[in-house]
Amino acid sequence: MDAPSDRAWPPTPDFDTWPVEFRPVEATTDGRIVTIAWDDGRVSRYHAIWLRDNAAEPQTHNPVTREQVGHPWDLPEYLAVSAVTVAENGSVEVTFAPEGVTVAYHPGWLRALDYSNGPHDDLGEIAPTCWDARSLDIPPTFDGPDCLEDDGTLLAALKSLMEFGIVRLRQVPTDETAVQRVAERIGTIRNSNFGFLFDVRTAPVASRRSADSNAYFAGALAPHTDLATREYEPGLQLLHCLVNTTRGGRAIYVDGFAIADRIRKTDADLWRAITQIEWTFTNRSPVTDYRWRAPLVVLDGAGNLREIRATTFLRGPLNVDFADVEAAYAGLRAFQTLAAGDRFAVTFDYAPGDLVAFDNRRILHGRTAFDDATGERALKGCYMEREEVLSRIRVLRRAIRATSAA
Amino acid sequence: MDAPSDRAWPPTPDFDTWPVEFRPVEATTDGRIVTIAWDDGRVSRYHAIWLRDNAAEPQTHNPVTREQVGHPWDLPEYLAVSAVTVAENGSVEVTFAPEGVTVAYHPGWLRALDYSNGPHDDLGEIAPTCWDARSLDIPPTFDGPDCLEDDGTLLAALKSLMEFGIVRLRQVPTDETAVQRVAERIGTIRNSNFGFLFDVRTAPVASRRSADSNAYFAGALAPHTDLATREYEPGLQLLHCLVNTTRGGRAIYVDGFAIADRIRKTDADLWRAITQIEWTFTNRSPVTDYRWRAPLVVLDGAGNLREIRATTFLRGPLNVDFADVEAAYAGLRAFQTLAAGDRFAVTFDYAPGDLVAFDNRRILHGRTAFDDATGERALKGCYMEREEVLSRIRVLRRAIRATSAA
Repeated sequence: MDAPSDRAWPPTPDFDTWPVEFRPVEATTDGRIVTIAWDDGRVSRYHAIWLRDNAAEPQTHNPVTREQVGHPWDLPEYLAVSAVTVAENGSVEVTFAPEGVTVAYHPGWLRALDYSNGPHDDLGEIAPTCWDARSLDIPPTFDGPDCLEDDGTLLAALKSLMEFGIVRLRQVPTDETAVQRVAERIGTIRNSNFGFLFDVRTAPVASRRSADSNAYFAGALAPHTDLATREYEPGLQLLHCLVNTTRGGRAIYVDGFAIADRIRKTDADLWRAITQIEWTFTNRSPVTDYRWRAPLVVLDGAGNLREIRATTFLRGPLNVDFADVEAAYAGLRAFQTLAAGDRFAVTFDYAPGDLVAFDNRRILHGRTAFDDATGERALKGCYMEREEVLSRIRVLRRAIRATSAA
Repeated sequence: MDAPSDRAWPPTPDFDTWPVEFRPVEATTDGRIVTIAWDDGRVSRYHAIWLRDNAAEPQTHNPVTREQVGHPWDLPEYLAVSAVTVAENGSVEVTFAPEGVTVAYHPGWLRALDYSNGPHDDLGEIAPTCWDARSLDIPPTFDGPDCLEDDGTLLAALKSLMEFGIVRLRQVPTDETAVQRVAERIGTIRNSNFGFLFDVRTAPVASRRSADSNAYFAGALAPHTDLATREYEPGLQLLHCLVNTTRGGRAIYVDGFAIADRIRKTDADLWRAITQIEWTFTNRSPVTDYRWRAPLVVLDGAGNLREIRATTFLRGPLNVDFADVEAAYAGLRAFQTLAAGDRFAVTFDYAPGDLVAFDNRRILHGRTAFDDATGERALKGCYMEREEVLSRIRVLRRAIRATSAA
């Protein structure tokens, strides 16, 4: 690029860095639309209202918070562009009528946010890769202390988490708040009626008289998601092993999307049952009463897998059309039988320091029974949301982009 | 009723109380379905698998947690009922084959959960009543100390909150943690990057240099919802006024469902724009980067209003089909112009001790500008979820039902 090296780019209405890889060579307007021709031949078009709304100037964006202070609905209804030019450094200067205000736009920002050549990826989401026991024998595994200290390792671990729905960190310090330190490397912890952090541990039998979850007993737990009783099932769960000297209690993780996909491909009746018939999930505690109705598998508007709702031991009485009752149970049986078998499950014994982070709206977790006469078993856990992972990935990528642009 | 007064009802698989208003007079089975005739003439039918799955006996339900321990997918696939009788006290005893186990069912529970005569209301939701400035001149208002101490007052306040989307408590103590005490009368507080509790207060100008929200400045805030940048917009917000001696800063609350309904009834193009065209909402902070795509008004699968997404000052650059850009802005203009006008808004000055709880996925909140040279203004707030309100309503109703049954 032959742009001057001492150029002062105009500000952008965000905190991102926008490398300038292409340079505008011409800018024209018919008043309603600004058309920019770039030095690689691309032509981009921007509406006057879009440009005005996204102007990085103090009447439109608070330069501290980068939040909008102007309201596009307060702008003149017939806002127009009266002039547009490409400045010497490659920024684009746009004058708006009837206001008469001129705003300069950063060329890297304009190019990246061009919406006239099809939508761009503004969320930076990571597509899931489904897995079963043949394609994944252990969860993607990273060093815990490295993740706590090194941004590059953390970014790699978080990308695995988004792609496979699960990641395992090893050698995380086994103190009581380590899971919180790992969580806060990512973002905000989700509080619940089980606490900000929760314990899954062997305990004196007496304390179970008031237990509010089967997890606090020593029995096997069939693969499940947590909190399907809530409108918003947690998107993320962290489980950190502090101690494990009992016999049994082997960890089981299963990709619920893979099981759903298998049923979709093999049996239309079962597929209808697991995606259409709603179970009533209900939390039965003396002091809370959470309920939510949802099918086992929730699709988005486009028919894509959105979430698994499989806290099957928190099902209240089925309350659906009489004709759907046996189909609902057939769907439940099919789904959970696949989840309980060897074909889809990744299993391993927790070692102290293991921390598993998984997408609780996709991955089912369970355990085999353990014998609490043989020792002690203690996991510390917390809930978060998938969006915390995506936020951290974006900030880490932003930092990497800023470093490479510097 | 002539049932014996010393009857011992069988247990139920939950913590609820089930008044016995009707008595089974006959029970028959064809093996697959149990048919019960009641003393008022109703006939109810229950599938064998449904009865077995909901049996309140220790192999099926943990009697402490009331969670399921048996798995219906582990039951014999051709489970059947081999015998059924009505016991002298009116409970129904069912014997299952091939297991040979006999389970007794509570008649009040069986009657209430009868699904063969159409679905029953198992969530106990409360339908919204839309409002505007003509139908509501002040928010439904209750005494704060009464809500903290009296379950009946709290229940009435929470029902108003679910119906109108807003409730105001007055005379709540003005200490820094009172909002938390009120919140915890309901349920769990939702954590966010703005903190477990957050402050909206006049502050030295210097501290604004690092502000991460426009709310921390003194300007007007157009009516908006909070955190549309998240996949799960908080369902509930509490704002508690501790001090208010500034001039201005008048509270504005608007029923977003009423505005959406108005647009639905008057303009099909605008309705399409606000319900179909997705904005990218984005939080621009140096350390977080939350983004979510959603239309201003989100409908559920049946076309009912589900939530308003109107954190309009957290819009990132629109990233949609080129042909939809001007329509998106027209929809935004229409929606926000109605929200900013007098026709829909309820406004009032916060008095110290006022605490407003509102459905943040339905009600927009805002304020007029205030002059921070004239005094001090301090609000303390937190987020929760609608499901916490519904859980508390169910538990309060459960307690009332138990009292009246005793």
